[in-house]
Amino acid sequence: MRPFAYFERLSQAFHDYPSLSKILVVSTISGGGLIVYSEANPSYSNNGVETKTRKRKVVLLGTGWAGASFLKTLNNSSYEVQVISPRNYFAFTPLLPSVTCGTVEARSVVEPIRNIARKNVEMSFLEAECFKIDPGSKKVYCRSKQGVNSKGKKEFDVDYDYLVIATGAQSNTFNIPGVEENCHFLKEVEDAQRIRSTVIDSFEKASLPGLNEQERKRMLHFVVVGGGPTGVEFASELHDFVNEDLVKLYPKAKNLVQITLLEAADHILTMFDKRITEFAEEKFTRDGIDVKLGSMVVKVNDKEISAKTKAGEVSTIPYGMIVWSTGIGTRPVIKDFMKQIGQGNRRALATDEWLRVEGCDNIYALGDCATINQRKVMEDIAAIFKKADKENSGTLTMKEFHEVMSDICDRYPQVELYLKSKGMHGITDLLKQAQAENGSNKSVELDIEELKSALCQVDSQVKLLPATGQVAAQQGTYLAKCFDRMEVCEKNPEGPIRIRGEGRHRFRPFRYRHLGQFAPLGGEQTAAQLPGDWVSIGHSSQWLWYSVYASKQVSWRTRVLVVSDWMRRFIFGRDSSRI
Amino acid sequence: MRPFAYFERLSQAFHDYPSLSKILVVSTISGGGLIVYSEANPSYSNNGVETKTRKRKVVLLGTGWAGASFLKTLNNSSYEVQVISPRNYFAFTPLLPSVTCGTVEARSVVEPIRNIARKNVEMSFLEAECFKIDPGSKKVYCRSKQGVNSKGKKEFDVDYDYLVIATGAQSNTFNIPGVEENCHFLKEVEDAQRIRSTVIDSFEKASLPGLNEQERKRMLHFVVVGGGPTGVEFASELHDFVNEDLVKLYPKAKNLVQITLLEAADHILTMFDKRITEFAEEKFTRDGIDVKLGSMVVKVNDKEISAKTKAGEVSTIPYGMIVWSTGIGTRPVIKDFMKQIGQGNRRALATDEWLRVEGCDNIYALGDCATINQRKVMEDIAAIFKKADKENSGTLTMKEFHEVMSDICDRYPQVELYLKSKGMHGITDLLKQAQAENGSNKSVELDIEELKSALCQVDSQVKLLPATGQVAAQQGTYLAKCFDRMEVCEKNPEGPIRIRGEGRHRFRPFRYRHLGQFAPLGGEQTAAQLPGDWVSIGHSSQWLWYSVYASKQVSWRTRVLVVSDWMRRFIFGRDSSRI
Repeated sequence: MRPFAYFERLSQAFHDYPSLSKILVVSTISGGGLIVYSEANPSYSNNGVETKTRKRKVVLLGTGWAGASFLKTLNNSSYEVQVISPRNYFAFTPLLPSVTCGTVEARSVVEPIRNIARKNVEMSFLEAECFKIDPGSKKVYCRSKQGVNSKGKKEFDVDYDYLVIATGAQSNTFNIPGVEENCHFLKEVEDAQRIRSTVIDSFEKASLPGLNEQERKRMLHFVVVGGGPTGVEFASELHDFVNEDLVKLYPKAKNLVQITLLEAADHILTMFDKRITEFAEEKFTRDGIDVKLGSMVVKVNDKEISAKTKAGEVSTIPYGMIVWSTGIGTRPVIKDFMKQIGQGNRRALATDEWLRVEGCDNIYALGDCATINQRKVMEDIAAIFKKADKENSGTLTMKEFHEVMSDICDRYPQVELYLKSKGMHGITDLLKQAQAENGSNKSVELDIEELKSALCQVDSQVKLLPATGQVAAQQGTYLAKCFDRMEVCEKNPEGPIRIRGEGRHRFRPFRYRHLGQFAPLGGEQTAAQLPGDWVSIGHSSQWLWYSVYASKQVSWRTRVLVVSDWMRRFIFGRDSSRI
Repeated sequence: MRPFAYFERLSQAFHDYPSLSKILVVSTISGGGLIVYSEANPSYSNNGVETKTRKRKVVLLGTGWAGASFLKTLNNSSYEVQVISPRNYFAFTPLLPSVTCGTVEARSVVEPIRNIARKNVEMSFLEAECFKIDPGSKKVYCRSKQGVNSKGKKEFDVDYDYLVIATGAQSNTFNIPGVEENCHFLKEVEDAQRIRSTVIDSFEKASLPGLNEQERKRMLHFVVVGGGPTGVEFASELHDFVNEDLVKLYPKAKNLVQITLLEAADHILTMFDKRITEFAEEKFTRDGIDVKLGSMVVKVNDKEISAKTKAGEVSTIPYGMIVWSTGIGTRPVIKDFMKQIGQGNRRALATDEWLRVEGCDNIYALGDCATINQRKVMEDIAAIFKKADKENSGTLTMKEFHEVMSDICDRYPQVELYLKSKGMHGITDLLKQAQAENGSNKSVELDIEELKSALCQVDSQVKLLPATGQVAAQQGTYLAKCFDRMEVCEKNPEGPIRIRGEGRHRFRPFRYRHLGQFAPLGGEQTAAQLPGDWVSIGHSSQWLWYSVYASKQVSWRTRVLVVSDWMRRFIFGRDSSRI
């Protein structure tokens, strides 16, 4: 039927060899100009040997960064994966601000979740929302948006052997009155689409007759609440959209448009280097974006937003559209589950360093709905001493300590972070320093008090991981690799020694590697903060941004679409049709 | 700000020189591989010389084929054009069936209406729906979807000097109960988007647990009502979408999907050549699309559709989704206007051959909301005779008749159609035949009775124009050209002589030139019926279809997008994310 078997085979080859996707495509869509072709020699690894026993059922809740990278990595046919999510696709969320203004199309940033799982893993998908997790009966209860069967029943339950919770978070309104009803959020693809049509609507409304100047100005006043990366990127995208594209079509609106950014803290982009913050604030001022720092929103109604300055003054601003992007809150299903397992007073599910939910069996949580409860060194200090002191002499020799050192660094990553922050090269420096401080100069042995005093500061380095796609994706990949090698590692554990038990942990704990962060600032300029606090701002970072975001796409399809969207924008500008 | 001035200039050049768009783009999106470049030497024609007097205000209702081609052609700066439509874009409707299944994206077939008007015509747009036309006060009354001013007023009125009505038609439900509430239509871009997500929804719903086979089958039963080009194209697009893309992702659904096409007549595609109808019916049977001919829908509820056969048997079929595509009905605003001007019992606005609404001054109607009331020869036969008989002799010589012949053919196009249908080469043949039939053999002169008898059959050739985009577009172009030369032709009329008055008509009447019609049948096969009843079916017609539809795009942007969508579909298939 379809005469393009060649293309299909090519597309298949791309799918089978994810490593191909490391190459950045620039001109794949050109007529016939496909640049890469590779003979298909399937070479799946053999660890997924089919067993005769019943497959273990993994239920995965959520198809965001964490869920998708789990699915993309899992490569063991002894599992049967049941994915449950209200969205049957993965969305590349860092491009959502671009979708709000049509720089990139919504469909270019989504990929059907069924395409993401590997071929040798039996995967099925249910488009439904989980509303209750019951760890006792090992069931999750779900609800479909539509009537399911002839009786209109919408609810059903699903059993699991392993449960992976990756439902993400929701926007946090801080219970400020009127926010829920009057503001746009920017978490989902649909949000971005709604914002896009609301922007166009505002321009069309302001073009209608029978309005005075003040009313038109109100309609074209766009307020962004929250000076984090998303809010800042949306504000600059909107500024570019208005100035590069919309003023051509709505010339009368040019002097009426106003973009205001409200931030409760003293600066925007506080998670970035000071240089980036300064550059961004200056650029926004030059661009005419009104940045109001130290402004705390207190109330929103259908036409006005009220904000309080630090001095306590409340000012009320008329607006046409508000985009609310201030942080994340807990989803009801997670709140309910936390209550059940005695974590009711937390913001997110607490897991151990292997992403297992504390107090539950075979339940894992990752991404924005979870936080890792890193074990403190000082809580375990007696056990650590005991474990290291093999001779039971009551003192540790340096040699004894060195033997367990790598296990301790594995188990307590804060130790390494602390050493790094102090500019020390090894644990020996730390011990020596402690001994020197204690006035002791035995260079050979140390007792438990000396060990305590050496390590008492390291736990200050325990930090919560940021709620970003990068963390979620690394967690998903990590967990899938653990699942892949569950049986192998059961027999040959490869983790650090158990401090409070016997033997070793099956796996090494999850370790986050920060690869840097971008803050696009509009006008083809981006700020980039890369590992080692390397800061780059300007047009070159914009090109780095393009390359990284193109290469990070989850499929060749979205990669080609995103790149061609960017080119389309360069050539033809953004579309302003209200669909 | 934007470092791509080259691209912008190029894009501008495309816009300024519409003739460039005659070239079919195949590989424009490739990285830097733009193939055409032309130095920009604006060369606007000089007929739009600015006058000191007040500009005449043309109000155009609608932004469909008729409205957009009017705007695209109008090139006279002495008009001020006010466009009013609920949609701020023009949609390339022949691709809507492709949008329903994601073969082409919705945004690729729309172009902002503000981009379509020529630069030297002052044009403004109001996003609102006209709900009343008042020819007495020369006003139209409009309603915006949103609250306009602070008092929440949504209505306003607009004055006109000339009114061009191009609001199109709406789907016709024939008042069959349940159709409005339960069926999808396929007139607007939003309809196509809704159909797309409903199709995906059906597959997701049928994948949920707790359903029996029968319920799943019902959910995956897609019913198309109406065997016209739109219904047939949608059915075949859906068939391809299911078989090429969806069964890969939903393998269990393969044997549950059913597509049924209900047609009240004895065949589908009745407006096409019999060979095409037969081919289409056979292909659908092969593809497993159930074509039920002679089935008249009598009732629809939320789960079942009832149809009556010609024999009177009523059968009830459970369905998952219905697409209703049976014909067009009148919009309420047009119905109301027709009542006002005494055309209350008609389906569409009657206009004369110059597209002027009968009984109104300075009001024009074109596209699906209007029909041309072609003046009959027999109604004017006495006047024709009188006009031709310059000597007032009571008889016409052939010479006298020949002198007015071209005017008569201009004024009454049915004469030429009749001659063509009879295989005659000129009017002389007709007259001779009439004289022979009357037993008269004077070859030199004829009286009024002989003229009557010669022309009595020609009015049978008067046919309503089909409600297609092709007709609407030609009418829009025609009317804009008339507006462009209004003043010139006032002084130097170029139309035929007035049969019932003195002098000449200002313009030649509108004449439709049928350029052919396509019926895509799926599986990369299309049926094409071109002028001269040239019929072509198969893969080659599909490529002709691609070329024609690409070249007919209203802008370079949509052309590039549509072509790249087609390529994307070949390479990656259609996307099934439910957004």
